[in-house]
Amino acid sequence: MTAQHTGDSARIRLLIDQQASAFRAKNADGVLAAYAPEAVTFDLAPPLQHSAAGARERIEGWFATWVGPLGYDIHDLAIDSTDDLAFGRALVRISGTKTDGERPDVWARLTLCLRKIEGAWKIVHEHTSVPFYMDGSLRAAVDLKP
Amino acid sequence: MTAQHTGDSARIRLLIDQQASAFRAKNADGVLAAYAPEAVTFDLAPPLQHSAAGARERIEGWFATWVGPLGYDIHDLAIDSTDDLAFGRALVRISGTKTDGERPDVWARLTLCLRKIEGAWKIVHEHTSVPFYMDGSLRAAVDLKP
Repeated sequence: MTAQHTGDSARIRLLIDQQASAFRAKNADGVLAAYAPEAVTFDLAPPLQHSAAGARERIEGWFATWVGPLGYDIHDLAIDSTDDLAFGRALVRISGTKTDGERPDVWARLTLCLRKIEGAWKIVHEHTSVPFYMDGSLRAAVDLKP
Repeated sequence: MTAQHTGDSARIRLLIDQQASAFRAKNADGVLAAYAPEAVTFDLAPPLQHSAAGARERIEGWFATWVGPLGYDIHDLAIDSTDDLAFGRALVRISGTKTDGERPDVWARLTLCLRKIEGAWKIVHEHTSVPFYMDGSLRAAVDLKP
């Protein structure tokens, strides 16, 4: 890894940190700033995939299901980068109080694929998920800890 | 994209095609050949993440839950690559007959992160999932179609 790549890795970490801060503050503009216009995401909720179209409505709708601040903490972030392409993986702990009074505290898996576009790193693909129990229940495994 | 990168993209597609063929044939060696020794995977089933340790037992155990050939078809594969780093995303349709007589036919999301290692592309990170219904059921969304 060259010094250039070390610098890229630091810039990508900053981008991801800034986006996590925006999630915690329920700041949709801050969250959306991290994505390229052509980003395709595989999210926790259906459908199978999303384009950037409608991203603001989705994120604002999701924020509206939480009361007060949101817990959104990135753990074990590992990044591989070259001059203009990078990917990262992490675990993300999402917690808080829902409008119905439930208090989820879920560890999910996060994979990020990035491109440097006009000098700035942007997320072009994101995959967030939990696994599921392959028994009769087919329940989402929202109770796992790392 | 340079000719070099076009060639890399073609080589990565071949790797992914060959691995999909190995899945269909329930050939564990063929499936495992696509991964780097340090690969970390986020799989359909718990736990949250796996290292390469125990990969053979997991894949052979999973193959043993299916009777006869397995359907494993990659759709809408999109690849971004540079000289030695690449990522791809796709939808994968997994179908067949389980030993208990059930006949799953599931569309999942697949994200692949690759490195060129000693001249050969290898998967260093893989994320496979389905989303889940964020209602009281928390059921895995195994019934989605693209």
